[in-house]
Amino acid sequence: MAPRSCVDSGRLEAFSDGVFAVAITILALNLSVVGPGQHQPSLAGQLTAHWPAFAAYAVSFSTIGIIWVNHHTLFKNFTEIDRTLLFLNLLLLFFVVTIPFATSTIAAYLRQGEHDASLAAAIFQGVFVGMSLSFAGLFWWGVRRKRMKIAFTPEGARRAMIRFSIGNIAYLAAIGIAFLSPTASLIVSALVAIYYIFEQTPAGETATPAAGTSDTGPEDS
Amino acid sequence: MAPRSCVDSGRLEAFSDGVFAVAITILALNLSVVGPGQHQPSLAGQLTAHWPAFAAYAVSFSTIGIIWVNHHTLFKNFTEIDRTLLFLNLLLLFFVVTIPFATSTIAAYLRQGEHDASLAAAIFQGVFVGMSLSFAGLFWWGVRRKRMKIAFTPEGARRAMIRFSIGNIAYLAAIGIAFLSPTASLIVSALVAIYYIFEQTPAGETATPAAGTSDTGPEDS
Amino acid sequence: MAPRSCVDSGRLEAFSDGVFAVAITILALNLSVVGPGQHQPSLAGQLTAHWPAFAAYAVSFSTIGIIWVNHHTLFKNFTEIDRTLLFLNLLLLFFVVTIPFATSTIAAYLRQGEHDASLAAAIFQGVFVGMSLSFAGLFWWGVRRKRMKIAFTPEGARRAMIRFSIGNIAYLAAIGIAFLSPTASLIVSALVAIYYIFEQTPAGETATPAAGTSDTGPEDS
Amino acid sequence: MAPRSCVDSGRLEAFSDGVFAVAITILALNLSVVGPGQHQPSLAGQLTAHWPAFAAYAVSFSTIGIIWVNHHTLFKNFTEIDRTLLFLNLLLLFFVVTIPFATSTIAAYLRQGEHDASLAAAIFQGVFVGMSLSFAGLFWWGVRRKRMKIAFTPEGARRAMIRFSIGNIAYLAAIGIAFLSPTASLIVSALVAIYYIFEQTPAGETATPAAGTSDTGPEDS
Repeated sequence: MAPRSCVDSGRLEAFSDGVFAVAITILALNLSVVGPGQHQPSLAGQLTAHWPAFAAYAVSFSTIGIIWVNHHTLFKNFTEIDRTLLFLNLLLLFFVVTIPFATSTIAAYLRQGEHDASLAAAIFQGVFVGMSLSFAGLFWWGVRRKRMKIAFTPEGARRAMIRFSIGNIAYLAAIGIAFLSPTASLIVSALVAIYYIFEQTPAGETATPAAGTSDTGPEDS
Repeated sequence: MAPRSCVDSGRLEAFSDGVFAVAITILALNLSVVGPGQHQPSLAGQLTAHWPAFAAYAVSFSTIGIIWVNHHTLFKNFTEIDRTLLFLNLLLLFFVVTIPFATSTIAAYLRQGEHDASLAAAIFQGVFVGMSLSFAGLFWWGVRRKRMKIAFTPEGARRAMIRFSIGNIAYLAAIGIAFLSPTASLIVSALVAIYYIFEQTPAGETATPAAGTSDTGPEDS
Repeated sequence: MAPRSCVDSGRLEAFSDGVFAVAITILALNLSVVGPGQHQPSLAGQLTAHWPAFAAYAVSFSTIGIIWVNHHTLFKNFTEIDRTLLFLNLLLLFFVVTIPFATSTIAAYLRQGEHDASLAAAIFQGVFVGMSLSFAGLFWWGVRRKRMKIAFTPEGARRAMIRFSIGNIAYLAAIGIAFLSPTASLIVSALVAIYYIFEQTPAGETATPAAGTSDTGPEDS
Repeated sequence: MAPRSCVDSGRLEAFSDGVFAVAITILALNLSVVGPGQHQPSLAGQLTAHWPAFAAYAVSFSTIGIIWVNHHTLFKNFTEIDRTLLFLNLLLLFFVVTIPFATSTIAAYLRQGEHDASLAAAIFQGVFVGMSLSFAGLFWWGVRRKRMKIAFTPEGARRAMIRFSIGNIAYLAAIGIAFLSPTASLIVSALVAIYYIFEQTPAGETATPAAGTSDTGPEDS
């Protein structure tokens, strides 16, 4: 029933958009400075000391922004939202919602160095792994249960899964890197964000790659 | 007038989705750690000490997520939103909005033990009782005033009410359990959340159970 | 152009719903307790001492909830959203957004008594006056510029304005009462909220009161 | 494909509205007072001392409100949302989300005077420059790639760009002014907000200025 599943998808997207919007906005609550006071450093001093907060904010903002763009592209291609997709989507949001916590933790501990900084960076990357795997789960379930408007060839689905794996493997690697250099692991997640700006979500991958690509997703040409 | 009531329901759902989305996202504000400092425990120590915050976050996230899924299924079946439903929905949201407070309170007091922990757990379960009863009220009013697309047989409505009662009774029991063991009462609400993942909302219960079940709700087969 | 103005109204309502939803949800941030500590009072003691926070939360939640219901009814009756209505709506939201601040201020100072409590209560009521007058402005502009689906008779518009005045006058009176008894002024705003639960918004008032009332708003019979 | 791009724009607008709504509402979190206490100044004293918080709140609320109105007018005129527009919109939101931080920083440091106040005011204006330039980027890309419902004459596009430049130059000038007088720079951004209330967004500028202006935007006559 087209109208029914359309409404379903609409409300799922509206709720998810709400969660993405709140999570991306409260990220900036971590940017607060202490305010002036007798024993406080100057504003310039505080901003310099808090550079990890700004770096982590930029990485997390970009990551949530990109996952929103991909979420949007993926759900546009779903013909029907079943109960499993609803709960997989909640699992994705579970990780999205913890991003502000992970961001404030890495911001607070990055300059500490030693074990605390590594642990904070590993938590940060771990949340991204969870988000990334949930997203892959949504895609995988949609393909398997044939809930997609665009049928995937086995080849197309495999290639899409390889692309996903790149992000997932990078985040997993970043957990390991966190114990060598927390700052390097933050750079890895920044690079993943940049990679996904240029790399389209698999929903843009059609079953008939030889034709009609103008109809497969929001492309700019 | 179909278009009118459709718009009504749309805006009620959009507003409710907004509240659900904000409430579920600010839950994670309770997860914050203190940050490094001379007399602060290590990050690993803080995370271990704060396990009730993570457990309570997981329970509250799941509970809000499930109530959202059920809200979604219920309102899809309403043909018209009357003023009473608007205010019953506000009552539901009144309890949803207090979940972050109840969650942070149980997170802060659970490890205290003694009376404070019990009181905090009882408040936590009390908010869930209020939410659960408001939701039952929405369903009951919709059935009584024949605002549902799917007419309920008296038998179907009774069975739906029994299912609701399971959740309500579990939450009420958890208030009592809170005074014996606050941790056990938290486990009860986690089990209720798991129960509702597998148990559909009553709106999926049709008047004609022998036929047409493919049209009754977002089912995955 | 019906589709154009419909989209307009849709986005204005979506944005307003977002603001209402966030404002109503962050109200509950004021409910936080300090957490256990050596010199902290017990949880029960804190909750008792913080009763103004719970009372103010209940009043503010109800007031935002009711203004949302009325906003919803009013905008459903607008045929077109002009630039003035956009900015009047922003003025309404300006006051809605300050409600959490006014609520936390009255919650913090009510038990202080003396001048601070009166000032806090007067600010609380002042924000409600601003909200209430902005809402009346939206209605008045809609009627004057004939932006309403239901044409108002001069008599109907006058009666609607009288109803609005009741709320406005009550809030204005509550500012005065705040200087005699801050608690009494809080009770006045609770009574106004109860009054508006039973009293419909003027948009339900038709030009042809003798006929067709079944089409004028979300009524439950 | 009209329906596809319509959905795209719908979700982009819903997500953006969510971010605007959350950002505009959490602005008011900066308004909090400390609460009563032995060594605390009176409420009236605190409110007087915190005047920069109220002034900055009013300026930021108006600025976000106006950018929302213009965002709304601009996206109504887009026929299709391409991937570049999605990311330009994320860039706009990146600056919108930092406004609460910039607002609380200027509120905290404005009365300090000296270098900290200037730096805080310069950051505040810098965020507005970023927001303003991103918005101009969205408009410029829409015109260049012919994504607008209303075709722009080269003359119309140039005039629209001049109007944009007025805001951008004012914000850039305000960065400089911040180092002479932080308070004066706050007044400049208040004046820009007032200017944009009366000045329409360029999307109201048609290719055929001699005719059909009744169809170009939400005008009140």
